[in-house]
Amino acid sequence: MSTAADVLARCDALAACSDHPDHLDRAHLTPALAAAHRLVTGWMTAAGLRTWRDQAGNLCGRIEGREPGLPALLLGSHLDTVPDAGRYDGMLGVLLAVAVAERLGPEVAAWPCALEVVGFTDEEGARFGTALLGSRALAGTWDDEWWDLQDADGVPLAQAARDFGLDPSLIGTAARRPADLVGYLEAHIEQGPLLEEADRSLGVVTTIAGARRLRVEVLGEARHAGGTPYPRRRDALVGAAEAIVLIERTVRDSEAIATVGQIDVEPGAVNVIPGRAVFSLDLRAATDEARDAMRDTLLAGIEAVCAARGLGVRVTDVYAAPATPCADRLRDALRAGVVATGDPAPLDVWSRAGHDGMAVSAVTDVGMLFLRCHDGISHHPAEAVREVDVAAALDALTAAARTVATQAPVPA
Amino acid sequence: MSTAADVLARCDALAACSDHPDHLDRAHLTPALAAAHRLVTGWMTAAGLRTWRDQAGNLCGRIEGREPGLPALLLGSHLDTVPDAGRYDGMLGVLLAVAVAERLGPEVAAWPCALEVVGFTDEEGARFGTALLGSRALAGTWDDEWWDLQDADGVPLAQAARDFGLDPSLIGTAARRPADLVGYLEAHIEQGPLLEEADRSLGVVTTIAGARRLRVEVLGEARHAGGTPYPRRRDALVGAAEAIVLIERTVRDSEAIATVGQIDVEPGAVNVIPGRAVFSLDLRAATDEARDAMRDTLLAGIEAVCAARGLGVRVTDVYAAPATPCADRLRDALRAGVVATGDPAPLDVWSRAGHDGMAVSAVTDVGMLFLRCHDGISHHPAEAVREVDVAAALDALTAAARTVATQAPVPA
Repeated sequence: MSTAADVLARCDALAACSDHPDHLDRAHLTPALAAAHRLVTGWMTAAGLRTWRDQAGNLCGRIEGREPGLPALLLGSHLDTVPDAGRYDGMLGVLLAVAVAERLGPEVAAWPCALEVVGFTDEEGARFGTALLGSRALAGTWDDEWWDLQDADGVPLAQAARDFGLDPSLIGTAARRPADLVGYLEAHIEQGPLLEEADRSLGVVTTIAGARRLRVEVLGEARHAGGTPYPRRRDALVGAAEAIVLIERTVRDSEAIATVGQIDVEPGAVNVIPGRAVFSLDLRAATDEARDAMRDTLLAGIEAVCAARGLGVRVTDVYAAPATPCADRLRDALRAGVVATGDPAPLDVWSRAGHDGMAVSAVTDVGMLFLRCHDGISHHPAEAVREVDVAAALDALTAAARTVATQAPVPA
Repeated sequence: MSTAADVLARCDALAACSDHPDHLDRAHLTPALAAAHRLVTGWMTAAGLRTWRDQAGNLCGRIEGREPGLPALLLGSHLDTVPDAGRYDGMLGVLLAVAVAERLGPEVAAWPCALEVVGFTDEEGARFGTALLGSRALAGTWDDEWWDLQDADGVPLAQAARDFGLDPSLIGTAARRPADLVGYLEAHIEQGPLLEEADRSLGVVTTIAGARRLRVEVLGEARHAGGTPYPRRRDALVGAAEAIVLIERTVRDSEAIATVGQIDVEPGAVNVIPGRAVFSLDLRAATDEARDAMRDTLLAGIEAVCAARGLGVRVTDVYAAPATPCADRLRDALRAGVVATGDPAPLDVWSRAGHDGMAVSAVTDVGMLFLRCHDGISHHPAEAVREVDVAAALDALTAAARTVATQAPVPA
């Protein structure tokens, strides 16, 4: 039976599946994702799951309940990563789900539902800019316009899918209906410092806050760096820089979080004043209302800064996800699972990060369990978890899955 | 005989030689440069010049003096461009030189020197990051380490040269000795607003200020955008942004000019706090002393800003050119040429921009003539010149070349 140490050893093995020789990069539909699928398929099969890859590129495994074809309790997380990633964000949740399935396997044959494990792809959106492609396909909220999304090399998503052995015309077969599922449970590292500060192994997620992402273009005039005196400059980068400093100053003392993770300037020559600067803005808050109010405050500030410099501003709302509340019955099952590990009063936390559950909630209830991680670090090679916390998560998730499954309504 | 209107029509024709379908991009050793060479070779040949391409990728033409093999008076400028360029920076100087050669052709046979025209490549350094590769090869100051420079696609310079039909092992054949040359004269748009403000067609350059270029790396920590509260962030981009605002504020009221034309962040994902930001810094001033003092002031300020944020700073001096004074005898000849166009007291100007003359000065005296350009705009599609100013430049450069050539010392 797999232990926490086994799960961690699998995280290490999986980290070798990378598109970059020196660090972990595993984007949607890359050779590294295919290699990860081969490894995880082996572990799933050993755990007694029947496996397949759906037409979105998600890796799936299933153990039937008391009769074939019953709705399934879904456990999982994602197998893709950000560039230069750590080895736990996503992968740990998938490998915990595989270990839970191995533990529960013998009893599933008596359940009123099936048990499934999913390793989603593209939770991070690192390659095509749009996140949650895998979980949105599973939730049946796929948009065919996404096939035209291009990666940095200009490869359209549809082409990348075909190169991966998928058939875009069959994407609909990845979709589940509400009647197919009993619920979705995911374990994930916290990606924040709250559990560590509270000295807890685990926390129960109340809500997944929805990020809002903007693309801000600052428009000035490209001119020669030498010959243009300051009064004649309309330097888009200096305007963007002033905006970025303003964003931090404004948000720092609020409940919201804002991050500029990407910036590009044109023409981008060492001796030319930038005529255009484009940056991303990622906004989060505990409620959608607080987040959207902060958006308006920041945009007014950015526009004022740029207007004072004779610069134009063009803002595109790239992405907005509403907050996703976790279902009470799944929170209760997870809380009971955590209590059984010896924590009498499990901590409730709201998730500042987005997760596949945001997409999955379109088709079934979702619940999430957070694991303490070192110093709140994630999206970085220094991500670290403690074996004792992984062991607690394994126990808590096993117990919660059993509770949810055995309480599943018997289909008519 | 070519007129100013002909020269301007040739600038228009040449602007079609681009590596980009929608705007003018003509970097070192690209198909667009080869196309430009074909066009200019035709015009040189029609003007009576014998043409060849040297092993650095410069396009050359020559008319012999009273006997073959005499030292040459060199006229020219460059044929490469920045990305999204105008059509006059560089090209106008080459095409003026061709038109001057056509005018002077019949009398060169009586001169104590030859007349050459050169269309340098890589004055801008847009592709490999190091500028003046063409003129430095001609000046015999080539450094073989440059063959390892790579473009944005990872193509080494040596490979690009071979693909262009050049033989890197023969680069030494492009070098001229001091005894091969009588001097170098270049006409170029001012790239600044001073002539326009003074209502003059032309100006005589006193000194070409040397730019100093730095690469500034700001080192923080990449972390998840959602889960990392502000006190734990070490956001390299916000530090770089504060530094960029500081640079402008510091330099704005000085005699120096500083420009940040490039910026890159890593990992560069919308939902990851940047762990590293790298930006270019281009510094210019009327004297090398003022420029270097400003460098030290700015770096101290950048370090203070970053230290306050727990960010590291790593600075690399990428490039530093000393100021290049123009030779008195060439300035005098150009001034006389401008006086003959009807401007009794030609304006002296110092060049805030770098030019091929900076490299050529290693092997022979240099002189430069500036033409008024619209609103000081350069390195931008809106670059514009007046036909009347091009006509004046054609006359002044012709007269100056004749003066310099006929005063050339007869070789022993």
